[in-house]
Amino acid sequence: MIGKALQPEITALIEARDFATLRDVLVDWEPEDVAELLSELADHDRAFVFRFLPHRLALETFENLEPDRQQELLKAMGREEVAAILNEMAPDDRTALLEELPGPVVKELLMRLTPEERAVAQTLLGYPENTIGRKMTPDYVAVRKEWSMREVLDHIRTRAESAETLTYLYVVDDRGILVDDIRINQVLVAPLEGRVAALMNETFVSLPVTADQETAAAEFKKYNREALPVVDSAGHLVGIVTADDVLDIAEEEATEDIQKFGGMQALEDPYLEVPLGSMIRKRAGWLVVLMIGEMLTASAMGAYEHEIARAVVLALFVPLIISSGGNSGSQAATLVIRALAVGEFSLGGWWKVLRREILTGLALGGILGVIGFARIGAWSLFSDDYGAHWPLVGIAVGLSLAGVVLLGTLAGSMLPFVLKRLGADPAASSAPFVATIVDVMGLLLYFSIAALVLRGTLL
Amino acid sequence: MIGKALQPEITALIEARDFATLRDVLVDWEPEDVAELLSELADHDRAFVFRFLPHRLALETFENLEPDRQQELLKAMGREEVAAILNEMAPDDRTALLEELPGPVVKELLMRLTPEERAVAQTLLGYPENTIGRKMTPDYVAVRKEWSMREVLDHIRTRAESAETLTYLYVVDDRGILVDDIRINQVLVAPLEGRVAALMNETFVSLPVTADQETAAAEFKKYNREALPVVDSAGHLVGIVTADDVLDIAEEEATEDIQKFGGMQALEDPYLEVPLGSMIRKRAGWLVVLMIGEMLTASAMGAYEHEIARAVVLALFVPLIISSGGNSGSQAATLVIRALAVGEFSLGGWWKVLRREILTGLALGGILGVIGFARIGAWSLFSDDYGAHWPLVGIAVGLSLAGVVLLGTLAGSMLPFVLKRLGADPAASSAPFVATIVDVMGLLLYFSIAALVLRGTLL
Repeated sequence: MIGKALQPEITALIEARDFATLRDVLVDWEPEDVAELLSELADHDRAFVFRFLPHRLALETFENLEPDRQQELLKAMGREEVAAILNEMAPDDRTALLEELPGPVVKELLMRLTPEERAVAQTLLGYPENTIGRKMTPDYVAVRKEWSMREVLDHIRTRAESAETLTYLYVVDDRGILVDDIRINQVLVAPLEGRVAALMNETFVSLPVTADQETAAAEFKKYNREALPVVDSAGHLVGIVTADDVLDIAEEEATEDIQKFGGMQALEDPYLEVPLGSMIRKRAGWLVVLMIGEMLTASAMGAYEHEIARAVVLALFVPLIISSGGNSGSQAATLVIRALAVGEFSLGGWWKVLRREILTGLALGGILGVIGFARIGAWSLFSDDYGAHWPLVGIAVGLSLAGVVLLGTLAGSMLPFVLKRLGADPAASSAPFVATIVDVMGLLLYFSIAALVLRGTLL
Repeated sequence: MIGKALQPEITALIEARDFATLRDVLVDWEPEDVAELLSELADHDRAFVFRFLPHRLALETFENLEPDRQQELLKAMGREEVAAILNEMAPDDRTALLEELPGPVVKELLMRLTPEERAVAQTLLGYPENTIGRKMTPDYVAVRKEWSMREVLDHIRTRAESAETLTYLYVVDDRGILVDDIRINQVLVAPLEGRVAALMNETFVSLPVTADQETAAAEFKKYNREALPVVDSAGHLVGIVTADDVLDIAEEEATEDIQKFGGMQALEDPYLEVPLGSMIRKRAGWLVVLMIGEMLTASAMGAYEHEIARAVVLALFVPLIISSGGNSGSQAATLVIRALAVGEFSLGGWWKVLRREILTGLALGGILGVIGFARIGAWSLFSDDYGAHWPLVGIAVGLSLAGVVLLGTLAGSMLPFVLKRLGADPAASSAPFVATIVDVMGLLLYFSIAALVLRGTLL
């Protein structure tokens, strides 16, 4: 199924502009594969091939294109074609398209919808971004508890074509309030004259329409459902969200967390589609903040300028020591941020984490400290780089490494908790942020230890 | 629905050991919520409450518990209870449980399964870890193309109870080879005497049983399905994978990538459950590798020891310069690793990325370089820290910042491509790894620029 788009026959047909034969080949493809093919074509070929597709396939292909490809095609189509496509798109796909367009264009497109479809689009667009309301679809099957199985099946026949899931049916009362969910298999095994009420257990899980999309991902993970119903504050059933939409949500959330963790503002679009100016702004902001923080290292080192002048050898190990602290901090921060994000523990877990990280930090610090001492010892066997007092230098560097690694581990693991407690996003305690904090503290620690160990010899 | 487990009434019932009333409350709960409650109880309470649950609820609750909670409960149960639970668990949940147990225990448990269930368990366990075979379930509905709708509906009635999805039915031939998929709504709207063959379009998407689980996540994202069929190399239908299982896979994959990006080996279990020794090993490995790389900075600085001795002021800016390079590298690596992971571009995209990153790196480097120069100028208005030659020092630091930020951007963005090309995981080009490379190069750049700019004055 994969890589179909690259078959040489297809390329040959397009080059020969034999769109009729191409259509005969494409009718046997999945719409997702046709969309992939279209994405790889030059702009003018894309519009041509698209217009040759049979109506149904064209619609489903359109739904699977990226929003900016969709916009290009809309521009290439006549008003009536545009209206036909928009009216038949699945409501959640249509919302995704309209969200990407500038305000006036959205208004113009809404005008071309039938009154019913317009109402649906406006409802979905009315919910704030990143809420479940934006991801839901009204294409579900709702039944009434006084209905017989025969009525349910008749109703399904009228709704089946557009429904996104048929595994679950939703029971609503006469005011449209969700009262239960039933599985279609219950309907299929029940007697035709039986009532919906007989299948109900009145336990169901629903999502509030204004809840954060991240919540939806967590609920799907917990309940393992193909779809979950969405209700407004009064309990009215207003839509459903399906598991495959949630897969997209989960991926977006992970991307945002990863980007923040890398030390930048999260991008809202794919990397290659972000305009260069906005890319630079989103990265420059944090880089400048981190740089200003890191300027403290120049001040910290300035305070030890005389010591450095007397024992230049101390300066040589500055990068090694501060980067080891940064690296151990980066590890600890990653682990804690991700565990908080997937809900492995919440704020109250800080104490358990701290206990583990103290032990881990001591062990890791011990290992790195010994290696640091050994490195200086080994070099001193063959060279005079570190002078006659190399054992003292080794001790100062080894102790500092141990201390700075412990420091990194503690700062990295606790900072996400502190940020969460303050109501900020724990993912903002990025690797670079933790490293900056640890750099300054590590320098002070290193020069204090060196001053103690080397007093009377080098200093 | 959320936070039910913490209601004071429940705690009161457990403290009063009134398990009969508790059961009456719990029968109205979703099994997922009961599982959450059990997870929060003390070990002896858990086994008690569990044994009081009605049979069906107990089974579904059991499926929703973490594997080690399941093992504890199995230990607390008699042989027959264990056999009953195991035989009725959904095959994919049972596989997840058996995977966590030591070999001899698995063997003993397999003995308690009925021959049919044992065959299912052994098939699922026979596929290598992280393949789709481990995540699939044989609980699907397969039909034959010569069947009438009446036969299909009769067949569904016998299979409906255990089927994980009913939205799709799978058409197989007499050798069990998958030939098509049809939606249940097509069945419901077709005449009862119509044939399956009339509904078939012979286009379908399937997953190979030996494919990586990551592939499944990508295919679900592309095709937006609730479930996808799984076939062996000969095309036989062997199971289905559902979208909610894929949600778990996607989350695990993101966690692994994030942990690698933080500069460590990925953990296989949740943070709090990893034994301390294994946690330390997984973190120490990379920390030591990075430290050994970072030792090159001591050698690089050692080569400029005389310059540092003559102009100690140069040493003060070392942390600022190398960390700025590390930070810009971390940003670039994050963006590229994630874009590669979600398939935004593949290896061939390196050229487009390089072009963007050169421009971005120049802009970011320019901004940081100017700020660095301004910092030195501002301090020099009020103090004599940087001596009479401060404008030259400022120029050396500013130019070095600009260069090192560009260097970081290029190294961070290209390294993931290099790793992918070599067949390694791009996520291994972690923030610390990129920072280490940039540190060494950045130091050489800084001291070379300083030697040029300050020759004849400070040096």
